[in-house]
Amino acid sequence: MSISDQPLAIGIDMGGTSVKYGVVRGAEILHPGDPIITGDFKGPKALIKEITRRVHQLRSQFPAIEALGIGVPGFVDVQRGVVHELTNVPGWKEVPLRNLLTESTGLPCFAENDANAMCFAEFAHGAGQGARNMIAITLGTGVGGGLVLDGHLYRGSSFGAGEVGQMSIDYRGPVFVHGNVGALESYTGIGPLTKRAAFLYRKAKIEKSPEELTPRGLAASVKKKDLVAMQVWDEFTSQLATGLVNAVWLLNPDRIVIGGGIAKAGKLIFDPLWKKMKAQLAPSFTKNLKVVPAHFGNDAGIIGSAAVAVEATRA
Amino acid sequence: MSISDQPLAIGIDMGGTSVKYGVVRGAEILHPGDPIITGDFKGPKALIKEITRRVHQLRSQFPAIEALGIGVPGFVDVQRGVVHELTNVPGWKEVPLRNLLTESTGLPCFAENDANAMCFAEFAHGAGQGARNMIAITLGTGVGGGLVLDGHLYRGSSFGAGEVGQMSIDYRGPVFVHGNVGALESYTGIGPLTKRAAFLYRKAKIEKSPEELTPRGLAASVKKKDLVAMQVWDEFTSQLATGLVNAVWLLNPDRIVIGGGIAKAGKLIFDPLWKKMKAQLAPSFTKNLKVVPAHFGNDAGIIGSAAVAVEATRA
Repeated sequence: MSISDQPLAIGIDMGGTSVKYGVVRGAEILHPGDPIITGDFKGPKALIKEITRRVHQLRSQFPAIEALGIGVPGFVDVQRGVVHELTNVPGWKEVPLRNLLTESTGLPCFAENDANAMCFAEFAHGAGQGARNMIAITLGTGVGGGLVLDGHLYRGSSFGAGEVGQMSIDYRGPVFVHGNVGALESYTGIGPLTKRAAFLYRKAKIEKSPEELTPRGLAASVKKKDLVAMQVWDEFTSQLATGLVNAVWLLNPDRIVIGGGIAKAGKLIFDPLWKKMKAQLAPSFTKNLKVVPAHFGNDAGIIGSAAVAVEATRA
Repeated sequence: MSISDQPLAIGIDMGGTSVKYGVVRGAEILHPGDPIITGDFKGPKALIKEITRRVHQLRSQFPAIEALGIGVPGFVDVQRGVVHELTNVPGWKEVPLRNLLTESTGLPCFAENDANAMCFAEFAHGAGQGARNMIAITLGTGVGGGLVLDGHLYRGSSFGAGEVGQMSIDYRGPVFVHGNVGALESYTGIGPLTKRAAFLYRKAKIEKSPEELTPRGLAASVKKKDLVAMQVWDEFTSQLATGLVNAVWLLNPDRIVIGGGIAKAGKLIFDPLWKKMKAQLAPSFTKNLKVVPAHFGNDAGIIGSAAVAVEATRA
C-alpha cells in the first residue's frame, strides 16, 4: 500500500491539560489542530461538544476522512468504547465516549488507552515496523507500556495489559501505589531516580542543582565520568534491564521500543541496557530481539489513535 | 460440539525416560499405549521408527484417527516442525520431527513444546475452559509455563514464550542458569524450597528426615502449625505471588492454572497465594481473574498434544 492509498483519519490525544489532534495519513500529521485546553470545558459533555465542533471543521476541509480515534489517559473498555475513569481529568466516570462521538460526528469512532495508542503508532508506522511481537515502554514520571502480540494490539481481559512499570523487580522491595512490592516504576520513574541521585550526592557531600539531578543532568554528568552519576546510572540500567528481561522471558518478543524523556539519552542508556539484558537471557531469546528508541515523540498519541481507528474500521 | 463429534487424534508425550501416548478424543484418552522406553532406542531415527510402528497399530484399531501431535521437552520451531534441541534426550539436534512423522505415518503431524501442550490441554479441556487469556504454570523441579492469549496458544518470536520460572523477583538476587538474577525458579523450585527448609530447621536445631523436607512433608508440617515450616511456606507463597503478579500486570489474564506436585497442597497454597496476589494488584486486574489448580495430571501432555494437532488441522 503506497502512502497516498492510506486512508485519512482524525487522531485525538487527550491529556490532563490539553486535547491535541490532527488529520493523519499513515505516519504523517497532514493538518494539526490548535490544542483544546481541557480546563476551559467543564466535564465530558462540554469537552465532547468542543471536540465535535473541531471535527466538523476538519471534515469540511478534508472530506475524505474515514474514521476517528481518540486516546485517553486512563481505563477504557475498548470493546464497548466506554471510559471507566481518567487518571488526571476529573468528572470522567463511565462515559460512553465512542458512541457519543460516533453520534455527534457521524464518523466511525474508537476509544483507546493512550499507552496502547502510542504503542500502536510505533508498531504500524514507527520503530516497531516489521515486528511480530513488540513491547513498547515509555520512561517518564511513570513507566507505561503497551503490547503488540502476533501482530495485534494485545489488551488483556479488562483492557489493562502492558503495565511493565507495575511489575516487581524485588519481592522484598518497597510497597508501591497498588500495594505491589518493588515495582519497576518505583525505581526507574523520574521521581525515584532524581531522589536516589540527590541521596548519593548528599552522602558524598557534593552539592548539585535541581537541574543536575534530572535524567538529562545525570546523563551529562555520566559523560563527564562523574562517579556518583555513574553509580546512579548503573543502578538505573540494571533495574530497567531486569524489568525488561522479565517481560522478555514471558513474551519472547522480537522488538522492544523505548520512548519518553529518559530514552533521549541514546547510547548512554541503550548500550548498558542491552549488555545487561543479554547477560540475563538465553541466546534464543536475544537472537531476533532488537531494543530500539521510539520513533515518534509527542505526536505518537495522535498518530497512534488514528492508526487504531484505521485498523478497527478495516478489521 | 458434542463429545462424539470431536475428532480422534493421537497424542504423544515425549519425556526424558519414556514416550507416553494414546488415542484421544477431547479430554479423554480412549486407548493408552504401552510407554516406549526412550533408552531402548539409540537416537531419533530408531525412536521415530518405533513410534511409527505403534502409530500404525493404533490406526488399524482406530481408523478414524485424523491427526497426531507430539509434545517434546525442549526447544521446537513449531512453524517448521523442527526440534532444535531436547533438554534431557541426547542426540536430538535439528530434527525435522513433524515432517519425518508425517511421512512415516501418513497422518497430519504437529510438534510442540511440552509445556505449551500441557497449557493447551487445560485451556481446551481442563481448568482453563472458558478463559480468554490464561497463564499455565507447573511447579516442580523447575517452574514451567505456557500462555493462551486472545484464545490462542501464544508462542513468541522464537517459540520460547511463557518462561515464568526464569522471570526475576529480585534484581539483586542470586545468578541463575542463564545468567539471570533472582529467577523465580531459583526460589520456588523443589530443590531451593527443600534447601531453604533444611537451612531453617538446622538453624532452629530441629532434626528432620529428607521426606519431611519435601513439599508434601512441609505442607503436612504447616497443617500441624510447625513454625519453621510455616515460615518456609510463607516465603514460598510470597515469592510465587510476586512472580505471578508480575505476569498479571503484564498480561491482565482471566485465568491462572497451576499444576505440578506442589500444587497438590490445595487450599494451603491457593489461599495465601490469592490473598497475597490480590494485595498487589489493582481491582480491575483481579475482578475477572481466577487462580485455579490444574485439572489434568500426568495425562496433560498426551491430551494437550492431541488437542494442539486437532486445532492445527482445523485452522
